[in-house]
Formats: sequence, structure tokens, C-alpha cells
Amino acid sequence: MTVGRWEPNARERLETAALDLFVTNGYEGTTVAQIAERAGMNRATFFRHFADKREVLFGGEDVLAGLFADAIAGAPLGATLSDCMLAALAAAEVVMTSNLRVVAARRIAVVALSSELQERGLLKHARIATSVTAALRKRGEDEVAARLGAEITLLAFSFAFERWMKANDDEPFSSFAEAALRDLQTRTAQLAHAQRFSS
Amino acid sequence: MTVGRWEPNARERLETAALDLFVTNGYEGTTVAQIAERAGMNRATFFRHFADKREVLFGGEDVLAGLFADAIAGAPLGATLSDCMLAALAAAEVVMTSNLRVVAARRIAVVALSSELQERGLLKHARIATSVTAALRKRGEDEVAARLGAEITLLAFSFAFERWMKANDDEPFSSFAEAALRDLQTRTAQLAHAQRFSS
Repeated sequence: MTVGRWEPNARERLETAALDLFVTNGYEGTTVAQIAERAGMNRATFFRHFADKREVLFGGEDVLAGLFADAIAGAPLGATLSDCMLAALAAAEVVMTSNLRVVAARRIAVVALSSELQERGLLKHARIATSVTAALRKRGEDEVAARLGAEITLLAFSFAFERWMKANDDEPFSSFAEAALRDLQTRTAQLAHAQRFSS
Repeated sequence: MTVGRWEPNARERLETAALDLFVTNGYEGTTVAQIAERAGMNRATFFRHFADKREVLFGGEDVLAGLFADAIAGAPLGATLSDCMLAALAAAEVVMTSNLRVVAARRIAVVALSSELQERGLLKHARIATSVTAALRKRGEDEVAARLGAEITLLAFSFAFERWMKANDDEPFSSFAEAALRDLQTRTAQLAHAQRFSS
């Protein structure tokens, strides 16, 4: 398929148009035809890029899943699980621009009003976790370590994202990510050593 | 509301009828009216117990969220985070019967065929995590420790459940749960100490 050959940045234009309309008229009150029209395209073009109306809000998650997996695959030989997790988080840096901060804030507001969108968000979250787990398995981690590593990577991303969203200066995302991961690693150490009271 | 006064075990009957029909005719091919009829009730009764057709498959998740939260709230004074997590997992024991193993296997087969059901499952999973996080916050844990504790509790539950489902003998769920939690705690210790190669 030659998707997008005649429509430069079609995906981005559709994403922007959708978000504009969702903010103004609500997610429920917006049709795919309206999104396509605002982006200067037709419905068929929309569906060449996105499976449904919900999907147009979650392109970023697919990008993240790819960035995380590639960074883990590309980590140096001998990298520990912890190194791989940090590499994954650092790789998100390229998409965490000040423009994204604005878009993300609008998107969060739209998603907060729709349980349908929240469910799609959770599905994307689960797919990122699956993608990170698979990448860690390929590095030789066993199933338990890979799933644990994936969950903690996503939790670190989530904390880093929350803090980065609130930050006003230009501190790069990677420093929030590294701080969040280190914080979680300190907590896991406490968790691991807190077995003395257990039966 | 006097839900169920004239319909003993209405919820359970609807759940069983729904699962029977989903297995036979598929989730998409089954209507709420058919579920209600098979359970000897009407549509209105179904909707007094469940918000929609998907919800009838996930009553168990709501029960688990309650069991986990109550166990954490009821853990002895001075219980560590790790103790609270173990208490939560052990509390699931009461519902993990050999009958549930049969029902769960059928349910897993139905959910595997429907992305709509998988999304609802993820929503329930997220709600259990929120419920466990809130219960741990009330024990004085901060936000980071509470969310980390909740994620690891759910991951331990997930591993324990997978192993318990495959087990043929009558080893209680709690021993699978304790083993899974200990395993994850050992892994987190490795994660916490594997920082030497990091920048």
C-alpha cells in the first residue's frame, strides 16, 4: 500500500484535527467524517491510517512501544536488566518535546471524560508492557524478570511523565525518567528486604 | 433497592447462564435477553445486577478488589508493605476453589476471542490496582511505594493464578501466591542492586 504518498503528514494532520474536535465538541459528539474533513481528507483516508475513531488518539503509544523495544534490543552487550530499562526510558526523550506537553494535556482532558477512551488507553498500556517484556526476553531474561522489568519500566515512565508534565523549565525528560527509575529501584530494595515479619 | 429478594443467587445464575451461552454461541452471538431467559429471569433483572453484557464476566474481579483492600486494611499494626501484600494475596484463597478453576478456564477461552472483553478485563485490572494502591496509602505508604506495591501484588497474583490453574492437586492457592511473591521479591532485590553498569 502507498499510504500517505499524496497526503504529506496525513497521520499528524488527522491526529491534530481529531484532538481539536474532541476538545471542542467532545469525543462522542465527533464523527470520523468530521475529523477527515477538518484535515482536508475523506473518511476512507482516515481508515487507511487508523482502525477506528479511538485509535487516532493513541498513535503516540505505538511509537513508545517501538522506541522502548528498539532501545532494549540495541543496548550494549552485557547490559543488565536495569541498564536495559534505563535505555528504554531514555529513548522516549526524542518524542517528549514541549509541543507534546501541550498536546498531551489536551489529550488527557479528552480521555478523562470517556470510559471508552480509557479502556483503549489501558489496552495500549498492556501492549507496551507486552512489547517491553518480549524485548527483555530476547536479552535472555526469564519470564518473571522480563514481566517485572516491564511493569517497573512502565511505572517509572508514568511517574516521570507526571513530573515532566508539571515542569515548566526545559529539564529533559530523560532526567525525570532516570530519577523515577532510581526511586523505584530504591523502593524495590526496601520491599525485597522487608521479609522479617512475614510468616 | 431490594435486588435479588425474589431471585435467590440471581447474580450467580446470570453469570453461569452467560458463560454457558458465550461458550456455545460466542460472546458476540449472545444477547442479554438470551442470558436472562436461560437464567429464568427477564432483561430488566439482568440490568439490575450488571451494567452491560461484558460486566457479567467480571464479577470475580470486583470481589478480588474488595478482598485485597479489606485484607490490607485488616493487617496487624506494624505490618510492613511486604506483609500487607502477602495478606492481600492470601485473602484471595476463599474464592480460589476447584469450581472456580473450571469456570476460569471457560472464561479465559471466551475472553481470548474478544478484544472488547479483553479491554474490559484490563479496566478491571486497573481498578484492582487502584483499590490496592488506595488501601496501601491508608496504611501510610507514600504514592510511589503504594503504586509499586500494588503492581507487584497484581503481578504475583497473575503468576500464582497461572500456576494454580495448571496444578492438578489440591495445593491451596495461598502457597502459590506466597511463592510467587517471594520470587518477585528476590528479583526486585537483583534489580535494585544491578546499578553498577549504569551511567
